[in-house]
Amino acid sequence: MKPIHLAIDCMGGDFGPPVIVAAAIIALRENPSLKLSLFGQQAAIQQELAGASDKLLSRITLVHCEEVVEMDDKPSVALRGKKQSSMRLALNAVRDEAVDGCVSAGNTGALMALARFVLKMIPGIDRPAIITAVPTESGHTYMLDLGANVDCDSETLFQFGIMGSVLCAANDALKAPRVGLLNIGEEEIKGNDQVKQAAKLLSECAEVNYVGFIEGNDIFKGKCDVVVTDGFTGNNVLKASEGIVRLLGMKLKAVFEANRLNKLVGLIIRPILKSFKKEIDPDRYNGATLIGLKGIVIKSHGGASVKATVHAIEEAIKEVNHSVPSKIAEEVEKLVNSRT
Amino acid sequence: MKPIHLAIDCMGGDFGPPVIVAAAIIALRENPSLKLSLFGQQAAIQQELAGASDKLLSRITLVHCEEVVEMDDKPSVALRGKKQSSMRLALNAVRDEAVDGCVSAGNTGALMALARFVLKMIPGIDRPAIITAVPTESGHTYMLDLGANVDCDSETLFQFGIMGSVLCAANDALKAPRVGLLNIGEEEIKGNDQVKQAAKLLSECAEVNYVGFIEGNDIFKGKCDVVVTDGFTGNNVLKASEGIVRLLGMKLKAVFEANRLNKLVGLIIRPILKSFKKEIDPDRYNGATLIGLKGIVIKSHGGASVKATVHAIEEAIKEVNHSVPSKIAEEVEKLVNSRT
Repeated sequence: MKPIHLAIDCMGGDFGPPVIVAAAIIALRENPSLKLSLFGQQAAIQQELAGASDKLLSRITLVHCEEVVEMDDKPSVALRGKKQSSMRLALNAVRDEAVDGCVSAGNTGALMALARFVLKMIPGIDRPAIITAVPTESGHTYMLDLGANVDCDSETLFQFGIMGSVLCAANDALKAPRVGLLNIGEEEIKGNDQVKQAAKLLSECAEVNYVGFIEGNDIFKGKCDVVVTDGFTGNNVLKASEGIVRLLGMKLKAVFEANRLNKLVGLIIRPILKSFKKEIDPDRYNGATLIGLKGIVIKSHGGASVKATVHAIEEAIKEVNHSVPSKIAEEVEKLVNSRT
Repeated sequence: MKPIHLAIDCMGGDFGPPVIVAAAIIALRENPSLKLSLFGQQAAIQQELAGASDKLLSRITLVHCEEVVEMDDKPSVALRGKKQSSMRLALNAVRDEAVDGCVSAGNTGALMALARFVLKMIPGIDRPAIITAVPTESGHTYMLDLGANVDCDSETLFQFGIMGSVLCAANDALKAPRVGLLNIGEEEIKGNDQVKQAAKLLSECAEVNYVGFIEGNDIFKGKCDVVVTDGFTGNNVLKASEGIVRLLGMKLKAVFEANRLNKLVGLIIRPILKSFKKEIDPDRYNGATLIGLKGIVIKSHGGASVKATVHAIEEAIKEVNHSVPSKIAEEVEKLVNSRT
């Protein structure tokens, strides 16, 4: 196992160091070849490191940062006004190759803007996208973009297809991931111009195993390994799915609290309900990748728990092991050469 | 109760007369002032009417139609090639005021095209939209558009807001339904140009109680009574929500089949699981309205059950009772006058 060194922005998200440092300690314990640089306010981080062993501490570098990107800071404020923020300095470390990648639970818009400015795009890729795995009947599928780009032309959607395919092939050891394009019907005549044109580009590209249009309900059936869509649709689809899962959870809870008998039954079958909850646990899917950049940047959910944050760190480790950004660069270069 | 007369297209959907005529009979039993004209192949419909009483039959008119719009017919084929289809003749009956509205489970694209051609748009409304109720924590919310329009400019989204508000006010007896605009964030700077501009139009309109941007996860929280979005996003959000509900159902079932003990527990608590299933029953939400037309057209789901089809017929009854199209026309006229 080659040693991996990650930068962790400890100041982002709803909870900051208490959750993020706790997750960092668990990740170090579970990954013996891992080293972490923790970026943030020294005192707050040190407090959370109080119980850690000297051996573990020897794999941690603490980088004190004067500034914090707040969850409601505009990207421009983070970019021009906070050059000493934990987010910025963690990204600088990726750029300078002091670390292999970074994880942040901070403000998505700011992280996107800073990452793009500091790391730059992979040549041939116009815009970064946000990609994550979502559960399906047969396992999971990767979906992008989840909100980085509200308007996407066909070329952008096409590039998403390539990037998603490379990430999925690397992470899941698949030879030819099935790439689908989200649309409001499976027929060729359906959809807007961008989608129709992107379908043409994808189907003509030998590097991508394009399987055609898929509909919203197909996402969770596992009909393809990568679902491509624009950031407006992807964001709304993902959040709506989270919303309805939450609603169903509430309704299920209400049924088991409806009367004394149901309450009693609920107590007795708690282990079964727990294993159901584990089965649909959103923590297992935390850690979205900002894809298309010349470096590995993982966005953890703002409200992520310790366990969920560990998962985001593990996503970064996976991508470092598979050199995802350089694989995307290779694929894009091949494509540019085949087009000219 | 004033008598209501509806046209039912018996040939659409995955099941045709066996399901649709059965639902028609139930609807007649439950609504004593209802009359139905059943459009379709005479023999097939008559077969399903075999058990009905003479009294019930006296409230049914059977209209034999030579042609059927198939589920995979292109709208142009339905429009120009099948002038004697059950779908076309049912819509003609609405136009000729022989009936108060119609219900069809047929091909959505064809129904949309035919309805627009036969019934025409309400003056001031540019494009029809598909609207339906979805469950929320506190009841339900109306969402539009669900797939009639893949590209929507700000004026179209604004008109959706007005139409949704009128439908919701009428159906739910609300004075000022809260209208929200689906976006990828709640802040003013988020989203594409169409959404930003539509927000401006809605907030300036005294006739609409516009409450701002809402995110995907807010749909099911009941943060507003009407959710406005473009047909591409709305269709994908709705179908993805259906997809994940299906996935969760499968996972829950799997947990109760994992081993003998769980199976036994599953048997014992079957009534509780049944009441949960009833709670989230999609049948209760069947019946989407084609809104913006000079007549009432309800689209039933292609795979709708008898119970779900009854619900779609009841949605039509509700809208006839509340004269939804003429209320929309009034509202739009007021608006045009206030703008000039």
